Amino acid sequence: MTQNTFDAPTVIRTKRDGNALSDAAIDWVIDAYTHDRVTDGQMAALLMAIFLKGMSGHEIARWTAAMVASGERFDFSDVGRPTVDKHSTGGVGDKITIPLVPMVMACGGAVPQAAGRGLGHTGGTLDKLESIAGFTAEITKPQIHQQLRDLGAAIFAAGELAPADRKIYALRDVTGTTESLPLIASSVMSKKIAEGAAALVLDTKVGSGAFLATEAESRELATTMVALGREHGVATRALLTDMEVPLGRTVGNAVEVAESLDVLAGGGPEDVVELTVALAREMCDASGLDAVDPAQTLQDGTAMDRFRALIAAQGGDLAAPLPIGAHSETVVAPRGGTMGDIDAMAVGLAVWRLGAGRSAPGERVQFGAGMRIHRRPGEPVTAGETLFTLYSDTPERFGPALSELDGAWRVGDEAPPARPLIIDRIT
Amino acid sequence: MTQNTFDAPTVIRTKRDGNALSDAAIDWVIDAYTHDRVTDGQMAALLMAIFLKGMSGHEIARWTAAMVASGERFDFSDVGRPTVDKHSTGGVGDKITIPLVPMVMACGGAVPQAAGRGLGHTGGTLDKLESIAGFTAEITKPQIHQQLRDLGAAIFAAGELAPADRKIYALRDVTGTTESLPLIASSVMSKKIAEGAAALVLDTKVGSGAFLATEAESRELATTMVALGREHGVATRALLTDMEVPLGRTVGNAVEVAESLDVLAGGGPEDVVELTVALAREMCDASGLDAVDPAQTLQDGTAMDRFRALIAAQGGDLAAPLPIGAHSETVVAPRGGTMGDIDAMAVGLAVWRLGAGRSAPGERVQFGAGMRIHRRPGEPVTAGETLFTLYSDTPERFGPALSELDGAWRVGDEAPPARPLIIDRIT
Repeated sequence: MTQNTFDAPTVIRTKRDGNALSDAAIDWVIDAYTHDRVTDGQMAALLMAIFLKGMSGHEIARWTAAMVASGERFDFSDVGRPTVDKHSTGGVGDKITIPLVPMVMACGGAVPQAAGRGLGHTGGTLDKLESIAGFTAEITKPQIHQQLRDLGAAIFAAGELAPADRKIYALRDVTGTTESLPLIASSVMSKKIAEGAAALVLDTKVGSGAFLATEAESRELATTMVALGREHGVATRALLTDMEVPLGRTVGNAVEVAESLDVLAGGGPEDVVELTVALAREMCDASGLDAVDPAQTLQDGTAMDRFRALIAAQGGDLAAPLPIGAHSETVVAPRGGTMGDIDAMAVGLAVWRLGAGRSAPGERVQFGAGMRIHRRPGEPVTAGETLFTLYSDTPERFGPALSELDGAWRVGDEAPPARPLIIDRIT
Repeated sequence: MTQNTFDAPTVIRTKRDGNALSDAAIDWVIDAYTHDRVTDGQMAALLMAIFLKGMSGHEIARWTAAMVASGERFDFSDVGRPTVDKHSTGGVGDKITIPLVPMVMACGGAVPQAAGRGLGHTGGTLDKLESIAGFTAEITKPQIHQQLRDLGAAIFAAGELAPADRKIYALRDVTGTTESLPLIASSVMSKKIAEGAAALVLDTKVGSGAFLATEAESRELATTMVALGREHGVATRALLTDMEVPLGRTVGNAVEVAESLDVLAGGGPEDVVELTVALAREMCDASGLDAVDPAQTLQDGTAMDRFRALIAAQGGDLAAPLPIGAHSETVVAPRGGTMGDIDAMAVGLAVWRLGAGRSAPGERVQFGAGMRIHRRPGEPVTAGETLFTLYSDTPERFGPALSELDGAWRVGDEAPPARPLIIDRIT
């Protein structure tokens, strides 16, 4: 049977039966789905077949290229500074982008950051920043260009980039096809390649709060993404970092902005500072920016200055108080001892249930919902002291959130085994 | 995490990860999909996960019961005759239902036949019967009841039965999830259980023209379906029959009705007569009807009488000429010898391309499209004589149809190995 074009059932059957999709089949199905000639049902069946049968490196590269080609690829080569961005595969309490971007600005880089909103247990940078009164990521392309030239950063909604990925990402979320290496790698990299930065540093998470279950899978994901970036001319490298426990002492929206301001003021939790500095150094190194040590920008106030300028340029008012949930609830220590590990996934789900995240695209989040972690793993605990404070505007959410936390932490006699925060570096 | 109800991603992930779906999860997902609370994308992802991970016997039974429960289950216990039906898993040239129903009527049975339209390479009984001028299967439930009581049969569109199956069947067809034992078994049996016959005989096909690739799979399908029927109180048995080569000498719509009339007149191809009589005997035996040998009804004209009465009751005019394609094309023998095997799948696809079938639900079929097979496997062939005649209203369809036939038959020096038409009986 000869055919001039493809049909969706044939493409689906090819992958279903464990065979490789041809370049032409991949190009066709991505284009046809973007333009509604392949249905959600057909794409969902194909995504499940990919989830269960996998894709070769070559297929992943072609799938990524087809998603990049579904929209515009930005070009910021004329902004007069080296462009560089960072992407995290998603973690709990992961506010790193907020202090990181102004540090790199202060070192002379330009960061075109296409950011996302959260879905499920991991938060989104946009949800956090939008808790600042007036801040908007809905900025025009000329404004992005101007900010990169004049300020050194722009944080914008990834909406227009890789429209095929936007559609597929939303479909994966509701069809149980999220946790797939080929689908994660192609989704992340299609957006980041289209975003137009010359260099990219990936923060690939390992552990309970990460999307992939094992360190080996996270390592393979990082390696795959680094290769995809390079194939598209983006100088890409990755750090493998720990996500067994939440980052820092806050998880939510406004509470994470507040913690980020602490970091920019030269304080903040050690782990957040350590990871932010490590990523900033990688970004500067990948861009040939060696005049300033990023750590210095936290001490001398230059990163805080850049942050204020960036937020102001996008309409945000840092003088306005950050929102905090109208109601709170605490969890106290049942005994004295040492705080053990705190399960990142459980904390992510608890904060999601408090209203900080969404169950469906387009839902409103509560900017004031979140959690403070008063005792981090390894810290001494006195019986009866407060370990966690939960915030929400809707008190009926405390019950489900507390259920998620149940069994996710313990106070014991010994400190939990130490784990390095930065596990490996993949270049 | 406690939950009062299910959510689709969790159900999908359960099957995706190779675990069994609970009874409650199956009941929920079938009901929610029927009422549009689970999307096509979600059901397609679940169907692909079922395709690749399978279902246990218990899961298949529950899935089937949930589909039966999605609509009404007919009750024909008051029609005054034993009710019995037959279902074929679908073959090429499979017009058996047309002579079979009136034979069983003539033996004293009542046949509530919920028939389907064809999709892909296998024809549908309704498409064939609708080539008779005026015939309609869109009859009301009271009319079905009255025909069963007064005549002994009604042939009606399965539309209202098992609405969950109707939706899932259409989705499977476009998402590459058709050829799955659990999905075929549950689809067939949900419709047939809801249809309300007390007994059921299954014609499970084996070979090139069947939906499952191997005899072992077809045997497992038959065994599964027999068990499903019995669990729902339907006296069910199955024949395993050969579908390597097309049945009879005609494949299409009106041409198959014409051949069926030959059988009802005491003639017709041997294989069609053999299979029809075997199935009629099983149906009578399953219903305790032993007064008349079904074979006798072909000789004494009583089956033909019942057929005329049935068609007339549903508006059909057998006096009107059956349509035949406005154009024809022939394939002649390249040499003399003996006809070898003719690949059933290739013939099915050729006739589909001639216009006898459809590529999408709701498409119109050409009643006059089809093929005559002048030389069946094992018959002597003279060089240059006509082997196949193709009919279509649209001559541009001959090229693609002839391409499908290419390589699907040969004339050789020896007869092909004989295969029994009826391979096994599963009770």
